[in-house]
Amino acid sequence: MITHIAHIGIACHDLDATINFYQRTYGLTVTSREVNPEQGAQEAMLKINDVDGENASYLQLLAPISDDSPVARFLACRGEGVHHIAFGTADLPSAAGHARAQGVRVLYDPPRRGAMGSLITFLHPKDCGSVLTELVQTPVGKKTLNT
Amino acid sequence: MITHIAHIGIACHDLDATINFYQRTYGLTVTSREVNPEQGAQEAMLKINDVDGENASYLQLLAPISDDSPVARFLACRGEGVHHIAFGTADLPSAAGHARAQGVRVLYDPPRRGAMGSLITFLHPKDCGSVLTELVQTPVGKKTLNT
Repeated sequence: MITHIAHIGIACHDLDATINFYQRTYGLTVTSREVNPEQGAQEAMLKINDVDGENASYLQLLAPISDDSPVARFLACRGEGVHHIAFGTADLPSAAGHARAQGVRVLYDPPRRGAMGSLITFLHPKDCGSVLTELVQTPVGKKTLNT
Repeated sequence: MITHIAHIGIACHDLDATINFYQRTYGLTVTSREVNPEQGAQEAMLKINDVDGENASYLQLLAPISDDSPVARFLACRGEGVHHIAFGTADLPSAAGHARAQGVRVLYDPPRRGAMGSLITFLHPKDCGSVLTELVQTPVGKKTLNT
């Protein structure tokens, strides 16, 4: 059902400075950078493992583009740090349906568009031990829906 | 330098209940369960990907065994949730030395024993955008030092 850690989402104030930190400290490089108006965030994806395709793992650095976005509210409340974790699945509707059957609230139904063209939903952190948890499906055989 | 996401550490009050949640919600299973007196924690490792050996990715569920342990202090201050993230490396001294050269404080030098017999150190969260970051080296060709 869950195949891998798709990414770890990290909230930051300054996206460029945070990208620079992860590049120089760990040697990571940016695979994708985009603005997600729906989430009110600009995002950078830094690949961590050497796996291509749908089982790759990333850091997702997130900075707000508006003061009323979820990431801006997170930063105002908690400060910088880990924002969410994301599990990869080959079948998002099935994984989300299974979570719902266990009493976990699924926040996006149908799924929405996530980083690099993936399909995503979130599970309510209050049902997940205060861990905001994302489910991610990347189309098989493609790095992203955009390529 | 960094090869994969070794694990995501999640702090919880009740280890059995949290294991049960991840088992029934995502179908994850426990690979290892142990007490780490040095960290004042009991830990369960739940494997996420189907990779064996040193590049496997886990959830690490952590519950305190004493009121003055770091995990107990984290729970008292922040509540349950993501406690730290861990990057895997094949050469911990090199990766830690590189981070130190970038101005990041390395908390354990020499490294200490982590879950499943790994070698670990931590990087100071104040130098890492408020992300408590662990570096993990698992011996090549063995799942753990204990096997």
